Amino acid sequence: MRDFSGDHRWLSINTATVRRQRGQDWPLLQILDACAARGIRAVAPWRDQVAAAGLQATARTLRAHGIALSGYCRGGMFTDADAAEQNLRALDEACALGAPCLVLVVGALPGALAGRAQHKDIAAARAGVHDGIAALLEQARQRGMPLAIEPLHPMYAADRACINTLEQALDVCDALDPARSGALGVAVDVYHVWWDPKLQQQIARAGRERLLAFHVCDWLTPTRDLLNDRGMMGDGVIDIPRIRGWVEGAGYAGFSEVEIFSTQDWWQRDGGAVLDTCIARHRSAV
Amino acid sequence: MRDFSGDHRWLSINTATVRRQRGQDWPLLQILDACAARGIRAVAPWRDQVAAAGLQATARTLRAHGIALSGYCRGGMFTDADAAEQNLRALDEACALGAPCLVLVVGALPGALAGRAQHKDIAAARAGVHDGIAALLEQARQRGMPLAIEPLHPMYAADRACINTLEQALDVCDALDPARSGALGVAVDVYHVWWDPKLQQQIARAGRERLLAFHVCDWLTPTRDLLNDRGMMGDGVIDIPRIRGWVEGAGYAGFSEVEIFSTQDWWQRDGGAVLDTCIARHRSAV
Repeated sequence: MRDFSGDHRWLSINTATVRRQRGQDWPLLQILDACAARGIRAVAPWRDQVAAAGLQATARTLRAHGIALSGYCRGGMFTDADAAEQNLRALDEACALGAPCLVLVVGALPGALAGRAQHKDIAAARAGVHDGIAALLEQARQRGMPLAIEPLHPMYAADRACINTLEQALDVCDALDPARSGALGVAVDVYHVWWDPKLQQQIARAGRERLLAFHVCDWLTPTRDLLNDRGMMGDGVIDIPRIRGWVEGAGYAGFSEVEIFSTQDWWQRDGGAVLDTCIARHRSAV
Repeated sequence: MRDFSGDHRWLSINTATVRRQRGQDWPLLQILDACAARGIRAVAPWRDQVAAAGLQATARTLRAHGIALSGYCRGGMFTDADAAEQNLRALDEACALGAPCLVLVVGALPGALAGRAQHKDIAAARAGVHDGIAALLEQARQRGMPLAIEPLHPMYAADRACINTLEQALDVCDALDPARSGALGVAVDVYHVWWDPKLQQQIARAGRERLLAFHVCDWLTPTRDLLNDRGMMGDGVIDIPRIRGWVEGAGYAGFSEVEIFSTQDWWQRDGGAVLDTCIARHRSAV
């Protein structure tokens, strides 16, 4: 297991972590400047942030700073009506930015995110997601862009993602890419999977070919909001080093990406100070 | 699958559903009277409600009304310091009330429920829970009182229960009661397990001997609170009849117990009206 205590060369910042500080959007190009000033070598931006900054301007700024991507957020939402079109755009943007993978948040019951689920058939939603990934995988293979299925915590099964365990995600991978070609894998976010009694076993099953991204934050007690109350690494109950040890033991050697949604805490602070804390906690708590 | 549409003979009310209406505790004996007046044949009371009403008075009132228990809430919390003593008391109370099983909410990281987790080792917590159930099972067998492990939703893994899937609960059952004697089984609450892609498979695995209780409510979108925003059956996204079909297909023939924690909605209404709605939804949405 790599020693993170001496530097932050394997730190990546998911730019949602500092997307809106104290009520004001922090523009993506400024976030990239702030990361570069701190020697942060990788980020994972969101599509809306890239759209606001401009795709080409983002690509230029990344190149100028020598900042890599640890992933691109995001494709998926296969149960939405415009999924096919949106996912092709996301693929092309990921290619333009040189992302190592397009992260997939796969969607769930249509309409549920707006509080108006059109049906209750989660098995049907899962079948639709399976077919959606299969179709997108063809396009992704043509572009050489790996797809990373991110299993989300079961508390998002209704409205955000109906793939909710690593085992389930890997079953989809095995069905659609039995050769373990590298074109299809998973993003392991400790927030979503830390509770899973089969986590260690399934990380080993995933192996190097399937482990495309590793995300960290922490689970707070109490958690006051289902979506936007994630904790900074070290402030919660997740044994992050243990999970990182399993992931690296299975062959993962990429970035550790910090992704924190925090309305009441981290989004209320100065963005630069948040980045400084991410660096410190990457070294001490990851 | 039984037809619930014509009557509510298989309805049970978990008394937490009407425990505190409009800011005032509804005393258990009054709840029992209100249930009896509506022809409700079963309840599942909580220990603190029974303690407030008196164990013998509760037993007498149940007998007078001919109301059965669908379970007794609850034992467990094996990672608490006083677990052994509390669980013996819970067992004896369950026996005094003629409960068919003692429901176990098994506990998780010690201190986490108070926001001060003493450690982050969920595997150790799980090992402790396993040992705690093993010890309690001896006492339960002597009293002829079945223990029902209730897997809780993974969002409670840190602070309330580190048994989070039906598969995990059944693994514990198989380890501690390989003979499927009836002394150890599970309580299946749709709120906790509806999201699980292995639910149908694991319900079939459980079978009649392990299926000791069946709880219903609904998952709302959005869910505004992790603990106390459960929905009335029919108001959310859980396909309850489908799950009940699986449970009954595996041999379960007992009560369908309504257990709703709802600070902002159902606990703000008249208790009798809530019971009336439970009856209506039991017939139309379960």
